[in-house]
Amino acid sequence: MRSSDPPADDPGAPDAFLDPLFLGPKGENAQLLESQLLDLLRDHVYWRRNFHPEDRPPIPADAPYRQDFQQTLARTRQELFWLSAELKRAVPFFSPRYVGHMCSDLLLPGLLAQLATTLWNPNNVAEAAAPATLDKELEVGRQLAAMLGYSVDPSRRPCAWGHLTSGGTLANYEGLWNLRAAAFYPLALAAAARRLELDLGAVGPARRPLDRYRPWQLVNLSLDQVLALRGDCLERVRARGDRRLFQRFTRAIIEERLETLGMASFFARHPEIEPPRVVVPVSAHYSWQKAMKVLGLGAGQLLRIDVDEHMRMDPAHLAAVLDDVLGREIPVLAVIGVLGTTEFGTVDPIHEIVALRRRWRRRGAGFGIHVDAAWGGFLAAAFRRPDGSLLPRATLRRRFRYFPSSEVYRAFAAVGDTDSATVDPHKLGYLPYPSGAFVARNREVVDLLSQEAAYVFDLERDGISREEQLRDLGRYVLEGSKPGAAAAAASVTFRVLPLHHRGFGRLMAQAVKNGEAFFDRLNRLREELADVATLVMPFETDTCILCFAVNPRGNRHLAVMNRFGRRLYDALRVDPEQPVQTRELFGSCTALARGAVAGRQADRILDQLGIDRRTFRAEVEEASRDADHIFILRHTLMNPFLLADRGDGSYLERFAHFLATTIRRLADQG
Amino acid sequence: MRSSDPPADDPGAPDAFLDPLFLGPKGENAQLLESQLLDLLRDHVYWRRNFHPEDRPPIPADAPYRQDFQQTLARTRQELFWLSAELKRAVPFFSPRYVGHMCSDLLLPGLLAQLATTLWNPNNVAEAAAPATLDKELEVGRQLAAMLGYSVDPSRRPCAWGHLTSGGTLANYEGLWNLRAAAFYPLALAAAARRLELDLGAVGPARRPLDRYRPWQLVNLSLDQVLALRGDCLERVRARGDRRLFQRFTRAIIEERLETLGMASFFARHPEIEPPRVVVPVSAHYSWQKAMKVLGLGAGQLLRIDVDEHMRMDPAHLAAVLDDVLGREIPVLAVIGVLGTTEFGTVDPIHEIVALRRRWRRRGAGFGIHVDAAWGGFLAAAFRRPDGSLLPRATLRRRFRYFPSSEVYRAFAAVGDTDSATVDPHKLGYLPYPSGAFVARNREVVDLLSQEAAYVFDLERDGISREEQLRDLGRYVLEGSKPGAAAAAASVTFRVLPLHHRGFGRLMAQAVKNGEAFFDRLNRLREELADVATLVMPFETDTCILCFAVNPRGNRHLAVMNRFGRRLYDALRVDPEQPVQTRELFGSCTALARGAVAGRQADRILDQLGIDRRTFRAEVEEASRDADHIFILRHTLMNPFLLADRGDGSYLERFAHFLATTIRRLADQG
Repeated sequence: MRSSDPPADDPGAPDAFLDPLFLGPKGENAQLLESQLLDLLRDHVYWRRNFHPEDRPPIPADAPYRQDFQQTLARTRQELFWLSAELKRAVPFFSPRYVGHMCSDLLLPGLLAQLATTLWNPNNVAEAAAPATLDKELEVGRQLAAMLGYSVDPSRRPCAWGHLTSGGTLANYEGLWNLRAAAFYPLALAAAARRLELDLGAVGPARRPLDRYRPWQLVNLSLDQVLALRGDCLERVRARGDRRLFQRFTRAIIEERLETLGMASFFARHPEIEPPRVVVPVSAHYSWQKAMKVLGLGAGQLLRIDVDEHMRMDPAHLAAVLDDVLGREIPVLAVIGVLGTTEFGTVDPIHEIVALRRRWRRRGAGFGIHVDAAWGGFLAAAFRRPDGSLLPRATLRRRFRYFPSSEVYRAFAAVGDTDSATVDPHKLGYLPYPSGAFVARNREVVDLLSQEAAYVFDLERDGISREEQLRDLGRYVLEGSKPGAAAAAASVTFRVLPLHHRGFGRLMAQAVKNGEAFFDRLNRLREELADVATLVMPFETDTCILCFAVNPRGNRHLAVMNRFGRRLYDALRVDPEQPVQTRELFGSCTALARGAVAGRQADRILDQLGIDRRTFRAEVEEASRDADHIFILRHTLMNPFLLADRGDGSYLERFAHFLATTIRRLADQG
Repeated sequence: MRSSDPPADDPGAPDAFLDPLFLGPKGENAQLLESQLLDLLRDHVYWRRNFHPEDRPPIPADAPYRQDFQQTLARTRQELFWLSAELKRAVPFFSPRYVGHMCSDLLLPGLLAQLATTLWNPNNVAEAAAPATLDKELEVGRQLAAMLGYSVDPSRRPCAWGHLTSGGTLANYEGLWNLRAAAFYPLALAAAARRLELDLGAVGPARRPLDRYRPWQLVNLSLDQVLALRGDCLERVRARGDRRLFQRFTRAIIEERLETLGMASFFARHPEIEPPRVVVPVSAHYSWQKAMKVLGLGAGQLLRIDVDEHMRMDPAHLAAVLDDVLGREIPVLAVIGVLGTTEFGTVDPIHEIVALRRRWRRRGAGFGIHVDAAWGGFLAAAFRRPDGSLLPRATLRRRFRYFPSSEVYRAFAAVGDTDSATVDPHKLGYLPYPSGAFVARNREVVDLLSQEAAYVFDLERDGISREEQLRDLGRYVLEGSKPGAAAAAASVTFRVLPLHHRGFGRLMAQAVKNGEAFFDRLNRLREELADVATLVMPFETDTCILCFAVNPRGNRHLAVMNRFGRRLYDALRVDPEQPVQTRELFGSCTALARGAVAGRQADRILDQLGIDRRTFRAEVEEASRDADHIFILRHTLMNPFLLADRGDGSYLERFAHFLATTIRRLADQG
């Protein structure tokens, strides 16, 4: 049954609601794309023509008849033909035959908006270069923030803000950059006050003079407390009415800041404070390691928390690490929770991280929390009512077979209590590259980031609102150029499909249902193949990325299993040397390295596979037998048409069938 | 005379060669854009349809007749209409009426390639996600490198490489990131050898044991020397044939590296070495300050060099600062030379920086050199012959009135001797956002950047070539997602217009000629307006960005002049509150802040304007009279059709006329 109602529990059919939203695996909606694109293109052309109708065309009407014109045109055509041919080697992300990386077909409204806006080529770095698209980017930031559970009511504090980035990696850098700016600001503030011998009276959460706070206390204030402390101190100096003093004070703060001194000199100047640690689950994306290097924090200061049997950060291990680190008064800049790992689609217990922070606050310490929801963030749309409130879990449960588990539900519900998040429209947002996003719970944090002097004095004097302030986007973000086309794409998309369960949430529900259907199918496949191989899903997904390892029957050696997996993957991968049509279906792969999961998880997985634990070694001695990683096949089930069955079997069913026959064939070959 | 020959010295006509390369100010080439875009779009659609012809379409043919389909479609149409209307508020970068920021119309081949490739949406972060476009990005990197004068011959060392970024800001970060990784690597290497008590024999440029180098010597090796030293040391350990020892050694190096320890712990562990400084001209882009903060180097460690009367870095001041800093044995991580400032289009003496480094090398010290050619880099195409060699200055001079001055010519000729460069295709490359680029002279630097363990052992064993290694782009760059569409756009463009004087160079020549024509016209305007105002160009451009300040006759107060300039700018700016058609022409503005240029430059400019020097104050006391900045109108003359005259006067002439009448009107109003 195809229906336009919100999807019932019918795993056998994709939600027909999605039909007009994609070009379609066979280009079914080509006419829609073509007619609307032409309309937008011509609208642009005639806008040019009539922008100032009195202007005469600089390119003469007879230019196309000139030989040099034709030569250049021919050359352009030739190179575009070449490109078009080359693109046939591209990975067919558009096809339901592709279930590899976190890519799928693009949402038509976003694609059209992106293409049309590229003709105008706005740069959202500043309003002067993008009056038409900058406000859309800030609106998109608010929509994403609301979807994740942050308050976006400008009449309340804190009020969230967000913006697009070139990807999740940059948003992750930005998360640490923001938290670092806040964490070490109070030390600079206290040093500046000391330098100017300013008595600011009782300030901060403990209502006492600044010099009565221990440095450890100052680096353990929450972000909101830092901003309140800053506002308080500046206001007190401002109230004295001495503009010069105010300027000397703000200048002294800047001079004392970590951002001015650099990491080395700042910590040399504050020997009582250790350089900070950052805490991630072992399952975190490699960009976190890169972030630590780039920001000068040091990859060695990244502490890794074990995951449990669901590939979720283990709260007990996190608690133990925090006990150890904070107990020794070493600052923890941030704990990173992953809302949808890129390898297994699993969701960390954000609520447990929030609870741990609450407990530590009572003990006088704290840490920032950034949620890396690059992959899974958009699933939050399935959780939200149009008014922004959270659907009860019971309501959600009725729509799915397994989703969301109680842990996953609580994790999504807790994001609003964290400091910031990464969420990528170019992943589960089905929008073109580049489109990542950074969202922060308290937009006042930008006061700590501006590239120029703090200017509260002027801001307030000139009555510049927060909204206006944020339009100067380049001052507060890491990037210096920002395609307005990406903002337009997200903006149009979220207007067509608002970020709640009746809008974008339906697309998310489809992805989750795809994942559930594949999970069930893999379980059947496991039984069907029991005579030739053992198929194990090492971790159940919390979203729609599914992984499995497969061991030919009777084999006990990890190296043999890995080779078997690689041969299977060879049948499922794009080979740059061969036409892409030579592959029937497409998956991707990953590996669990020794040390990437706790030993007991590795042991469990190997036991289930029937592999001798001793052949999983950090140091490979016998390459025909041992390996330092477990090879795993990985599938992202986000294509909206995976479950469509037009009489020739659904793509998902065909994928399972292909796996079955290929595994049998490979097992036969031995 | 319109001609298809290389442009002669005819400032009155734009190069007709450019006619087929743009959509045109009036959409003159709309048919070309439309027909080619449709062709590419349909090609994509039919590729989908026939990718596996046997698949049936998941979206039923009768879907468009369903009411829910029509509702969603209507909604999409409505929102795209809204977007299209909103975009009419965008800055008309396409128009020759726009001479403001560094934006203009887009090159058609690149625009078409970008639009078409977006349909495929490749992600150039890794070959598995972009088999069709990743090699194009690396090819573009080589093309840009060759244009700038780096060697790209893979059979020689060093061989350059490059890749695209989301913009110049990210490329600037990457420049410092690369240089930092190299500068402090030898200290880590020495510490690791010491820790393992490894005797590596005589190594490095001085051919002596590692522990016989002073730390100061180790942080002053050139990038090539660092890479050679690393290769040498690893090779010697490898030659012992003890795989375990090799792994212990590489692991120990990683543990000792700045990237692992973080800035704070690394310098605490090496108290004999001061945290490094970075040197920029005062005219450098604000992203350098941001880079210092982000990387944890500290904005306070940024040393600013004065500019001369041409707004070029003053080599004498640079020499003095280096004498002071290096003389005190404080490391200089990098000297940044700007090849085209974003405010005045001026070009730093790169050759002088290179010469100073050569001199310091002989004194046992050194520094990296990164060229921020985000704006001006593409002008290098005008300097190059098809074989890559440099045109003699005399040949170039015949094509222009003033360009290139001897200093500018020497600066461009010297880029090949620097370590790396930023160059933005989305600026003078006339390509859509986002498209920046980072280019490095020695591609082996990526060995220091990889997110995983150094694995020379494996690389060499497996016979992986440098070319293959670089395909794993995400390991060596700052970003984690990279639009393949941008790579396709640059690739097609540089095939249609190769980066030499007969290809892309002709577009660059047009931009320079625009600038020269405007320079001449402003000089005439100065004379024409002498009775009402004083018009001064504070710095002559080296490219095609022209600035002027204008002071109403008789006024001596800076604040009054600034207000006058702002009123003039009001007539030339996009006002987000008003339809963009209400403006006839568009410029941009900038300001020289007190301290942004050396006092004697400010004095000279104020004297020429007839402004009382005493009204230029750091601390404004009388707002009606004093100011802390000099307000300046700024124009980027890159639109290729500025000089076209179809009988109604060229746009440039109309702009000058508009300035004349507006200045007269404002002066009359008093």
